[in-house]
Amino acid sequence: MAEVPAECVIGVDLGGTKAIAGAVDASLGVHYRARREVPTSDLASLLETLTELVDEVRAAVAGEVEGVGFGIPCLIDQDRGLAASSVHLPINGVAFADVMAERIGLPVFMDNDGNLALLAEHRAGAAQGERNAVMLTLGTGIAGAILIGGELYRGSQGAAGELGHMVVWADGPPCGPGCPSRGCLEALVSGTALTTAALALARRSPASRLGQALADGREVSGPLVTELAFDGDADALALLAELGAWLGIGLVNVVNIFDPDVVVIGGGVIAAGELILAPARRVLAERALALPAQHARVLGASFGAESGMLGAAVFARDRLDERVRA
Amino acid sequence: MAEVPAECVIGVDLGGTKAIAGAVDASLGVHYRARREVPTSDLASLLETLTELVDEVRAAVAGEVEGVGFGIPCLIDQDRGLAASSVHLPINGVAFADVMAERIGLPVFMDNDGNLALLAEHRAGAAQGERNAVMLTLGTGIAGAILIGGELYRGSQGAAGELGHMVVWADGPPCGPGCPSRGCLEALVSGTALTTAALALARRSPASRLGQALADGREVSGPLVTELAFDGDADALALLAELGAWLGIGLVNVVNIFDPDVVVIGGGVIAAGELILAPARRVLAERALALPAQHARVLGASFGAESGMLGAAVFARDRLDERVRA
Repeated sequence: MAEVPAECVIGVDLGGTKAIAGAVDASLGVHYRARREVPTSDLASLLETLTELVDEVRAAVAGEVEGVGFGIPCLIDQDRGLAASSVHLPINGVAFADVMAERIGLPVFMDNDGNLALLAEHRAGAAQGERNAVMLTLGTGIAGAILIGGELYRGSQGAAGELGHMVVWADGPPCGPGCPSRGCLEALVSGTALTTAALALARRSPASRLGQALADGREVSGPLVTELAFDGDADALALLAELGAWLGIGLVNVVNIFDPDVVVIGGGVIAAGELILAPARRVLAERALALPAQHARVLGASFGAESGMLGAAVFARDRLDERVRA
Repeated sequence: MAEVPAECVIGVDLGGTKAIAGAVDASLGVHYRARREVPTSDLASLLETLTELVDEVRAAVAGEVEGVGFGIPCLIDQDRGLAASSVHLPINGVAFADVMAERIGLPVFMDNDGNLALLAEHRAGAAQGERNAVMLTLGTGIAGAILIGGELYRGSQGAAGELGHMVVWADGPPCGPGCPSRGCLEALVSGTALTTAALALARRSPASRLGQALADGREVSGPLVTELAFDGDADALALLAELGAWLGIGLVNVVNIFDPDVVVIGGGVIAAGELILAPARRVLAERALALPAQHARVLGASFGAESGMLGAAVFARDRLDERVRA
C-alpha cells in the first residue's frame, strides 16, 4: 500500500491498445500506478476494464480521491460532451465522461489525450513556461497538441491538433481504421507503423534477429525493435532511422507552420530516444525554413510515456479547483 | 484624377514578380490603383520601383496620405525589424520598412503578405467575425496565414504560417529558390507550379491549344490556363483539376490541424474559382477527418487578388491609430 497523500486525483491515459492510470498529488507525485490492456471490440468491455482500473488505483491509495481525468484518443465534441471520431476505440458518440462518472461515483473530466500530454509537459516538463509549443505523442497512433500563447489550442469544435493526420506522402500507405486518408504521419511514424515495418522485415529476412524473434514466437513490435537497436542490431537501427526521418518531415511542417519555441516528442515509441530524434533533427535542419528551424528546440518528453497520464491528472485537478473558486 | 478622400493610406502588396498598390480610405474604398512588375535581381532596383509605385499613387490622390503599409513575401524578424528568409526577393536582412520610410518620407509599416491578406478578409471579407481561420494566398508562391481566437498568429519570431512550405509529398518536386525542401504545397499548387505544368504540356502536345499558344509566342502561364479552361479546353481543365486536388491535400492538413471555421483561398491563381475549389473540396471531403471537415467552410477570398493590398492598408491604418491613441 502506498503512502497516504492528503489529496489525490487519478489520471488515466487511454491509448489505442492500453490504458495507464496513476494516483497523482498536487506536486505531480505519482503514488500508485496501474495499467490494463483495453478491449477495443465493444464499448461495454472497454468501460468495464476502465472502471476496474480506476477502482484498483482508488483502493490502493488510502487518502480520498477527488476526481478522475481521462485522456482519450479521439476528437472531443465540447458542446455536447461526446467522444467523436475515435480512430482506435468504440466510443464514437459516447458521453464518455458522464458515463464513467456514473460508474465510478466521482467527478470525471475528459480531454483529448494529446492535449493532456502537452498540458503536463507545459506545466512542469519539456515545454514549461513556453508560449508556443507543439507536441507529438507517438503511440499506437499519433496524438498531437498545440499550445498558442501559453494556452492549449482546441479549434472551433475541440477537434484541432490532429497532427498525426497530416498528409506528408499523398500516395503513401493507407492510414489506420477511422481515417480515410493515405500517407498520414501516423501511417509512417506511429508504433503501429513501426510494428508493420518490423514484421515485414522479419518475414523478408528470417535470418535476421527480428526474423529469429518472430520464429521464436516473440512479439515483434516497437519495444523489441528498440531493444535490438540499443543492442546494435543494424536492421533495427535502420527501421528506427527510417521512422525518425519521417518524423523529421512532420517536424518540418510543424516548424514551418507554427514557428514554435519547442516541439516535444512523447509516447511509447520515444523510448528509442536519440535513435529516432537524431535523424528527425537532421531532416528538420535540412528541409525546414532556416529562421523557424534555428529557433525551435526538439525535445523528448520530460515525463516519457507518462505525460498523458499526468496531464489527465493536472486537467482533473484544474477543473476541480475551478469548481471550488466558482 | 480620383476624388479627394479626406484620409487615405497606401497599401502595397509585394509579390514574387509584381507589386500592386492602392490608395485606401477608412471604409476600405480604393481610390486609385497601380501596379508594377518588380525587378528581383537586385535590391536597389526593387526599392526604386517600389518608390515610384508609391509616388504614383500618392500623386494621384489629392488628399493627404498618412502612411504606407507593405505586405512582403517573407518571414519578418519582428525583434530587429528585418525582412528575413525571402524565397523570391533580394531583401533578406534588409530593414525594409525603415528604408522605405526614408525614401518615401511617410510612416511605413510592414508585415508578411499572407498575414495581411487574412487581416483584410477577417476585417471585412470571407472570414469576417470568425474566431479561427486559415488563409492560403496562391500567387507566384503560396502565402499562408493563421487566425486564432480572432487574432493573427505570428509564431515565436513572426515566422509562422508558412503553409506553402508544408510537405505533402516527401519525394515530390523540388520547391522554389530559398526553400531547401521537396514536395511542398507551393511546389504543387502555386502559380509557378501551374506555369511549369502548362509549359510541360505545351511542349509535349504541340497540337494542343496550350501548345499552339506557345508556338504563337504567347505567355504560357496561369492566366492563359484559366482563360482556356473557362473556354472549355480539356487540357487546361485537367491542369486546374490536378492543382485543385493538390490544394485539397493541403486543405486536409489545414482542417485536421486547426479545426477552423473557415479556410480562405486567395491570390491570382484563384481567378479560376470553382475550377480549382470544387476538386479541392472533393479531396477534403474524401480524406479529412469528418468532424472538422463538416464544420470548416472553404471560400474564395472576398477581395480576390486585392486582399493583400487592402490588408496592407488596414495594417497601416491600425498602426497609425495606435500611435494617435498612445
